[in-house]
Amino acid sequence: MQIPSNIQGFIEKQADEASVKYDDLRAVIFNGTLKRSPEPSHTEALLSIPQTIMSRVGVKVDLVRTVDHVIPPGVWPDMTAHGYEEDDFPKIYRDLVEPAHILMIAGPIWLGDQASPTRLIIERLYAYSGDVNDAGQWSYYGKVGGAVTTGNEDGGKHVSAQVLYALQHIGVTVPPQTDSYWNGEAGPGDSYADPMSGGPENAWTSRNTTFMTWNILHFARILKDAGGVPAYGNSTYDWDLSMPDHPNPEYRAPSEPSSAS
Amino acid sequence: MQIPSNIQGFIEKQADEASVKYDDLRAVIFNGTLKRSPEPSHTEALLSIPQTIMSRVGVKVDLVRTVDHVIPPGVWPDMTAHGYEEDDFPKIYRDLVEPAHILMIAGPIWLGDQASPTRLIIERLYAYSGDVNDAGQWSYYGKVGGAVTTGNEDGGKHVSAQVLYALQHIGVTVPPQTDSYWNGEAGPGDSYADPMSGGPENAWTSRNTTFMTWNILHFARILKDAGGVPAYGNSTYDWDLSMPDHPNPEYRAPSEPSSAS
Amino acid sequence: MQIPSNIQGFIEKQADEASVKYDDLRAVIFNGTLKRSPEPSHTEALLSIPQTIMSRVGVKVDLVRTVDHVIPPGVWPDMTAHGYEEDDFPKIYRDLVEPAHILMIAGPIWLGDQASPTRLIIERLYAYSGDVNDAGQWSYYGKVGGAVTTGNEDGGKHVSAQVLYALQHIGVTVPPQTDSYWNGEAGPGDSYADPMSGGPENAWTSRNTTFMTWNILHFARILKDAGGVPAYGNSTYDWDLSMPDHPNPEYRAPSEPSSAS
Amino acid sequence: MQIPSNIQGFIEKQADEASVKYDDLRAVIFNGTLKRSPEPSHTEALLSIPQTIMSRVGVKVDLVRTVDHVIPPGVWPDMTAHGYEEDDFPKIYRDLVEPAHILMIAGPIWLGDQASPTRLIIERLYAYSGDVNDAGQWSYYGKVGGAVTTGNEDGGKHVSAQVLYALQHIGVTVPPQTDSYWNGEAGPGDSYADPMSGGPENAWTSRNTTFMTWNILHFARILKDAGGVPAYGNSTYDWDLSMPDHPNPEYRAPSEPSSAS
Repeated sequence: MQIPSNIQGFIEKQADEASVKYDDLRAVIFNGTLKRSPEPSHTEALLSIPQTIMSRVGVKVDLVRTVDHVIPPGVWPDMTAHGYEEDDFPKIYRDLVEPAHILMIAGPIWLGDQASPTRLIIERLYAYSGDVNDAGQWSYYGKVGGAVTTGNEDGGKHVSAQVLYALQHIGVTVPPQTDSYWNGEAGPGDSYADPMSGGPENAWTSRNTTFMTWNILHFARILKDAGGVPAYGNSTYDWDLSMPDHPNPEYRAPSEPSSAS
Repeated sequence: MQIPSNIQGFIEKQADEASVKYDDLRAVIFNGTLKRSPEPSHTEALLSIPQTIMSRVGVKVDLVRTVDHVIPPGVWPDMTAHGYEEDDFPKIYRDLVEPAHILMIAGPIWLGDQASPTRLIIERLYAYSGDVNDAGQWSYYGKVGGAVTTGNEDGGKHVSAQVLYALQHIGVTVPPQTDSYWNGEAGPGDSYADPMSGGPENAWTSRNTTFMTWNILHFARILKDAGGVPAYGNSTYDWDLSMPDHPNPEYRAPSEPSSAS
Repeated sequence: MQIPSNIQGFIEKQADEASVKYDDLRAVIFNGTLKRSPEPSHTEALLSIPQTIMSRVGVKVDLVRTVDHVIPPGVWPDMTAHGYEEDDFPKIYRDLVEPAHILMIAGPIWLGDQASPTRLIIERLYAYSGDVNDAGQWSYYGKVGGAVTTGNEDGGKHVSAQVLYALQHIGVTVPPQTDSYWNGEAGPGDSYADPMSGGPENAWTSRNTTFMTWNILHFARILKDAGGVPAYGNSTYDWDLSMPDHPNPEYRAPSEPSSAS
Repeated sequence: MQIPSNIQGFIEKQADEASVKYDDLRAVIFNGTLKRSPEPSHTEALLSIPQTIMSRVGVKVDLVRTVDHVIPPGVWPDMTAHGYEEDDFPKIYRDLVEPAHILMIAGPIWLGDQASPTRLIIERLYAYSGDVNDAGQWSYYGKVGGAVTTGNEDGGKHVSAQVLYALQHIGVTVPPQTDSYWNGEAGPGDSYADPMSGGPENAWTSRNTTFMTWNILHFARILKDAGGVPAYGNSTYDWDLSMPDHPNPEYRAPSEPSSAS
């Protein structure tokens, strides 16, 4: 699959001509496709747009195809502590998610909703959402996110809404227009990377995916330069949810985090 | 209705002690309650948190209770051009939405979903989403949003997901944790401002609403100071969706906007 | 707009050849389009399939275009008791909804979600959901429902899910495959009845809409013949939610209904 | 966990006194909890209501805790044909789903949405949705479904909407009020079976779950006695989606099914 060559050329040129530097940034993208490597993923085809742009401006991009890994379901950081023999996620979190400035969730649509590997990753990310940084902000503060979705038919907006909701709920920033998707007309039909789908030629999708990528880059740049989300009024250290009459305005020093939602 | 006095005091103190200035900012909040003034709105009770904080740091806050106005349904800027005799929305848009740096959508939950006035406002806001600024960015770029929701039972997350989806889709930035809501246990029960609801005493909701407000303020401050969302890679002027082989990399001067989604 | 003539012919022939009688049944369909009559509605174009079939088998079908009426928002049966001067809904409910065996909710998609008139009608229907029949069952028991949705792009499944959820929650039966919809590919494009949309030629949508209609007819026939949903185990008279240790197994005679959800 | 003893007693008495027989019916319930046996599942606690009622009226009930089995993600009937070494689902489908008249999907709420094992089961059920019966109806026609959901907070309606949507879309009948759920107030809190949750004492949830169960029983009885959903107007044999001018009214004999959605 290829988006039309002059669109591809334009996107590349725009990346090459960018005056701002992004080569200190890292991104991790989870692809919730049901297909294991090396089977081609339609969603991965659309992901070539953000991958191209981000790579060309110097961002280190890691793409994780969830079904290629042993990732048990669960809402605890390490599922080997809950009866599973293997769990690749703690290492993925430590090596790829924690250091990333950009966190994108991509995947297919089934029955108008997220595929199970997409929900799985959201659950596993959620397990770390109670961690806090030195300012008492939750750990995903400072990261910037987006959703990339493909399906042969209907559901791009619903999947995006659920994914973006989850991202912002755990502390990720959602820049303008980060619900990038393609799907065809109602009914059975070609998927994005199928030769006759029209997906790669859909300029609306290519444009939105391009805009999304730049908006993510802009916000990641701003937040990295600002040292994260400004730390005032949003510190868990200010609130002790176990106390009937918190918050405790006296308390300002880092300590044990209160539990996350 | 009152949140506990020491929480109220803490919130006020935090606002008063903020070192950053916000008095050049404006906010508009739409409340989609089904009750017309002067009937009290439960959602408005919870809105007292962002209103208090924003007002005390100098933001000019306009609260619009949708059902108090004559606002016909439609996805055109002015519905008097489509057969309605009256339409208050064009003036609301011009006077309150356009100049606002912060755009929040609040409202109740019915059958687990948004109230009709909430969808109405989203439709009317959408009608202006094809306008562009000088850089060719859509008109909501640079605004920062959030959702505030109350119900007697279940639905806060679903309503938030739909509202935040709509906001980011038209170009609004969604900071971390801007899905502030309260609802009670499953089944019939008290609403937020009812004396025994427990809503105002729910420290989780008060904390999240406080964090949401500060996160919105931080991002509104950043974007205003930056002159909006950085204008690179996200200009409608770069793409001509009517052309088979756009974008047009030669073209860079402002002109007619391409149509929005 | 026309579906292809031989599909139209087949649908009509099938209706004419049905051996079961349906001429004692009534249907009401709410169309939540944003366009007032006589502007054509795309959703109404797709509704011609269920209307054709139901009419030809003898069902009396009433189509209500919500925006053609004065229907204030609210969750009370009559909004003139809540400050509105006019309210057409009580008469619509009494004349069309109450006597109907079939209750369908149709409408367009905006930003991937229901139009405001759709949520409005759901709110107003909800206001009557606490009424009970002689058996103590809620008033919508025995009615059969479905959703018909059109949009130029994406959202048919999400809108259907929300509409069908609301219908079953208030007591309507949802037969198999009653989420009939059409929408085009991602991005701006033609709506259903536009000459080049491909909608009327989409056999998947025509087939599903036909199946939906027959499934609704089958269940309406069954439930009418059975005198409604069998009345055992589902009577509000058995439960007194205000009592700490209900239900009251002694009590079996009709009396005041307990309040609905 | 126990619902209050006199509610439990009432439910049991009602089941024992039912005059209709149900002992020729089978039910399968999938529980999408993230916890593997023998860890207790909150959702399973609420499932004791439908299990009690159905078992006492003679229905054979099979409960499948998804995470106790090896069930790879995918939308094909047997994932061992797609690179996985093991797949328990084909046997589960053949032994439990195919012969069942009742198909319920239960599970927890995470971030306001379905758990990944719930989406997984929906995907796997979907893989069989193109099969047809002798009348050319899709294979789930004639089955009756419902959703049972628990969470410590918010999301019961959204999860129900998505689950019931999927069920009806593949051909399952959704009786009135089959969205049974419990969740607590906004914010962290006890789950259903926790000693102080209030869940088992929530009469609204117990009542709805009871009503749901009887409504499912009524419709399963009706459809079994009727030999399934009446087979007129809803046969895939009537439509050849690959033909530009189907349906083919001449063709009425069983043959190859057209592909499902």
